[in-house]
Amino acid sequence: MTQPNYVSALDLPQDDDLSVEMRDYLAFYQERFGFTPNVFRAYASDARKMKPFVDMYHALMLEPSNLSELEREMIAVAVSSVNRCYYCLVTHGARVRELSGDPMLGELLMINYRVAELSARHRAMLDFATKVTESPHRVEQGDRDLLSAAGFSDRDIFDMSNVIGFFNMTNRVVSATDMIPNPEYHSMAR
Amino acid sequence: MTQPNYVSALDLPQDDDLSVEMRDYLAFYQERFGFTPNVFRAYASDARKMKPFVDMYHALMLEPSNLSELEREMIAVAVSSVNRCYYCLVTHGARVRELSGDPMLGELLMINYRVAELSARHRAMLDFATKVTESPHRVEQGDRDLLSAAGFSDRDIFDMSNVIGFFNMTNRVVSATDMIPNPEYHSMAR
Amino acid sequence: MTQPNYVSALDLPQDDDLSVEMRDYLAFYQERFGFTPNVFRAYASDARKMKPFVDMYHALMLEPSNLSELEREMIAVAVSSVNRCYYCLVTHGARVRELSGDPMLGELLMINYRVAELSARHRAMLDFATKVTESPHRVEQGDRDLLSAAGFSDRDIFDMSNVIGFFNMTNRVVSATDMIPNPEYHSMAR
Amino acid sequence: MTQPNYVSALDLPQDDDLSVEMRDYLAFYQERFGFTPNVFRAYASDARKMKPFVDMYHALMLEPSNLSELEREMIAVAVSSVNRCYYCLVTHGARVRELSGDPMLGELLMINYRVAELSARHRAMLDFATKVTESPHRVEQGDRDLLSAAGFSDRDIFDMSNVIGFFNMTNRVVSATDMIPNPEYHSMAR
Amino acid sequence: MTQPNYVSALDLPQDDDLSVEMRDYLAFYQERFGFTPNVFRAYASDARKMKPFVDMYHALMLEPSNLSELEREMIAVAVSSVNRCYYCLVTHGARVRELSGDPMLGELLMINYRVAELSARHRAMLDFATKVTESPHRVEQGDRDLLSAAGFSDRDIFDMSNVIGFFNMTNRVVSATDMIPNPEYHSMAR
Amino acid sequence: MTQPNYVSALDLPQDDDLSVEMRDYLAFYQERFGFTPNVFRAYASDARKMKPFVDMYHALMLEPSNLSELEREMIAVAVSSVNRCYYCLVTHGARVRELSGDPMLGELLMINYRVAELSARHRAMLDFATKVTESPHRVEQGDRDLLSAAGFSDRDIFDMSNVIGFFNMTNRVVSATDMIPNPEYHSMAR
Repeated sequence: MTQPNYVSALDLPQDDDLSVEMRDYLAFYQERFGFTPNVFRAYASDARKMKPFVDMYHALMLEPSNLSELEREMIAVAVSSVNRCYYCLVTHGARVRELSGDPMLGELLMINYRVAELSARHRAMLDFATKVTESPHRVEQGDRDLLSAAGFSDRDIFDMSNVIGFFNMTNRVVSATDMIPNPEYHSMAR
Repeated sequence: MTQPNYVSALDLPQDDDLSVEMRDYLAFYQERFGFTPNVFRAYASDARKMKPFVDMYHALMLEPSNLSELEREMIAVAVSSVNRCYYCLVTHGARVRELSGDPMLGELLMINYRVAELSARHRAMLDFATKVTESPHRVEQGDRDLLSAAGFSDRDIFDMSNVIGFFNMTNRVVSATDMIPNPEYHSMAR
Repeated sequence: MTQPNYVSALDLPQDDDLSVEMRDYLAFYQERFGFTPNVFRAYASDARKMKPFVDMYHALMLEPSNLSELEREMIAVAVSSVNRCYYCLVTHGARVRELSGDPMLGELLMINYRVAELSARHRAMLDFATKVTESPHRVEQGDRDLLSAAGFSDRDIFDMSNVIGFFNMTNRVVSATDMIPNPEYHSMAR
Repeated sequence: MTQPNYVSALDLPQDDDLSVEMRDYLAFYQERFGFTPNVFRAYASDARKMKPFVDMYHALMLEPSNLSELEREMIAVAVSSVNRCYYCLVTHGARVRELSGDPMLGELLMINYRVAELSARHRAMLDFATKVTESPHRVEQGDRDLLSAAGFSDRDIFDMSNVIGFFNMTNRVVSATDMIPNPEYHSMAR
Repeated sequence: MTQPNYVSALDLPQDDDLSVEMRDYLAFYQERFGFTPNVFRAYASDARKMKPFVDMYHALMLEPSNLSELEREMIAVAVSSVNRCYYCLVTHGARVRELSGDPMLGELLMINYRVAELSARHRAMLDFATKVTESPHRVEQGDRDLLSAAGFSDRDIFDMSNVIGFFNMTNRVVSATDMIPNPEYHSMAR
Repeated sequence: MTQPNYVSALDLPQDDDLSVEMRDYLAFYQERFGFTPNVFRAYASDARKMKPFVDMYHALMLEPSNLSELEREMIAVAVSSVNRCYYCLVTHGARVRELSGDPMLGELLMINYRVAELSARHRAMLDFATKVTESPHRVEQGDRDLLSAAGFSDRDIFDMSNVIGFFNMTNRVVSATDMIPNPEYHSMAR
């Protein structure tokens, strides 16, 4: 196997203080999918950090929003493509393939979303995600105006900005600690 | 006043569903400091996102860690310097001045930490934060080894990576929405 | 389908002057694999350019060399990763999966070869390919010395340099004309 | 002499298997110009690679095309300027001076084509060559539309893309092997 | 103190050949402000360089011009922000605060002028200063046209270009020699 | 002629207040060389700026220093190469050819000094000039230590830093105003 065979490069045992809620959360994945995503195993080393991380992930990616779950996953992949984040591209690329039923879409967003045939809405969304990721200090009102023109409300822009921010965070945590995706993701929804 | 006179460029009313805990959180700032930080007012527009954001902030920045609170704030400023994030540099620059009692340290980290006279520990910490922020895909084991050589444990590296990630997130949310710091910060601890 | 449904963005009919040798070349793919790679269909619009392109491809990628065919394909993917070339990453990513029997290796090289567990030989090879691609004017004798230290002869460096150059060419031709990979590649050797 | 006194940094004897055609090709230069361009001497170390390289060079740079030979040489210099390729700028800069009878044009393209007074056609052509060279993944239909608006056909764009690609290849081969231009070029057509 | 406690990293005694004019210049600062700016103390090590440096500073920053003194200081800070120059941001940031009576304006320009609410005139001026600093070779007539449209004459553009140039010079001299601002600047006009 | 036929893009008449000293300076060039360098003609539009500019040029480039005049011109060209400054590369490239008697040295420094065969002293000097120009905020004590190791004193580093700074200034003034070199330079010392 050519990817490192560990959760991350850091040697951190599971935290004994993990709450029942979080232990159940880990067990749920194991039972349902046969494996627990390594990102959660890594956070399980620190009870105080795990709970808000899991809660934020759910709030941003799974709670109701005018942005569909697929759209949020598309942003996840576009952001992670700029940052060349192996963990996030493998896992969220798989999720894009699964949610869209379109294996090519995952590949396109992972490599270069500019090649994809996208709706004006999705193109504006990914242009914004890319600019905010690459050069946040250059973002201005004109960039938000392009989103409004594509039909996004201020609420949608807030949701979008949080998803963009979240993956800029996880991309860094993953790269800083060399978190490695579970091998199961590679073949999903091909 | 030359900075925009709003919480952020998005027009988002406070969420009616905000929990008592979060309402108290906002009130606490108002009472104690005479103003509520705009970042929390912005998140108060979305009850589901506010709670994990506040919880994560506390878990990463205020909970016990081998990294002192000042060290975590130094990382916040160094990361925000790379991203040229106005909100975060103004607010966390103030916090560095306050915690260190050294107004120059805030300026040095805001502009270019390489000019500062830092301990080997702090230099290694800020070099890592800068590299993870600028080019996460180039981070490798050698970078973590430099941290170990400077006395950081794997647990410390995990804590550090989360702080670095967190400010790469908030820098993006702030830039994407043009969040503006409360004017009070500018004159603090000068 | 989210990838454009054409050979390339240019509307160019097949050249009537195509030689029998080149017509047979196209037919061979169709017969053997059920489709003709779009890059060859694109070059078939220009008889004078097609023959040296096909000859060069064979000379560099398939003729005997101390670099194995897999190694040359690994370089192809690493170069195309820097240039974010959709066509080349999809097609040569598939070839890496096929030749290595290791689907993860294709993903690793496509996203970020620094995460992969590679031999010192392969790491030196991909470091060189990446530097020559990103900033050719910074390449110096020290870079070639690293290759020699990893066991590569001057002849090997010549072979390697040509493969690196070739994909910097095709990446540009592909991007300039929006050449699109045949859909068949996506599911190969997963 | 301040430029290295070799064909390239690699020690590679001429290939004994060189065909009569290629031997004659080398001899032609020696006889006609008094020296053989080092790039061909370098490729003469590998019979299998030399022939397609020479054939491609002729197909792209000398065969009939709506792009004049000077225009193709202008592209060669603009691409090599981005990549700061010493060999290609010295040799093709000389060729631009020669074909245009305008020594300044060679200097302008070598340093910064934006300073030159160019026709709209040439400006569009060099803008495209520069973008494809600097950031191929950002090229989109809008870039090709600018070429169409400047009078270029799809066939012309194909020809142009191949010239751009070819010099992105040779720039890398040259830099990777430190190929050095024959001293004779420096004073040509001044 | 976290900033180095020296004029610069170079050990250079004051030049014995300093003219009376320059000695008086140094004394004037000491008497009037209680300290002599370190940049002048550094240049006092070289009589031949000090006089034209002081003269140029006065000619560009203090002599009559359609650009107000504040506008020239705003350019100084915007240029120094791109170059992350600690000395120049601390000293000219203080001067912007002083001349504008607006402490926030200094912070905004130091960190990211795009966040500030600026007149069209000032925005055009700082956009130009930033582009000339970041990528001088990309500046073209269109950039000067934007200045003309914002009401700047050719004379104004000449004045502006000289101020931009001057701080690109001092930023480099300062960084190359690690010149350190006198501590007094930090608390000025807060 | 493919370079613009003007002193600069700005329409600025000669200043009536020009001193006799400066008028004589202009006349000297005309008489001695048959033309007046456009940079001085441009500054002649502003008497207050011309004198310190000329004085600084002389102080840095012509006054005694441990850096030979050729070495200072080599720095001028290396800095201008990073900034792709047409005016400065044409004029100071000519001066390097003239002072060195080596036409190739001018070309090498203009395109990529890393290809040239340079003494350790000159290589260290140009590495420093390039780093200070490209990324001044990354310069640290280690960079100055490399200069010391190559035999440069603190005084030499001060001289060098001023030359590097000066050309970062003139490169910007030239690019901001589109100053064009007198055609006579192109054929000098070929």
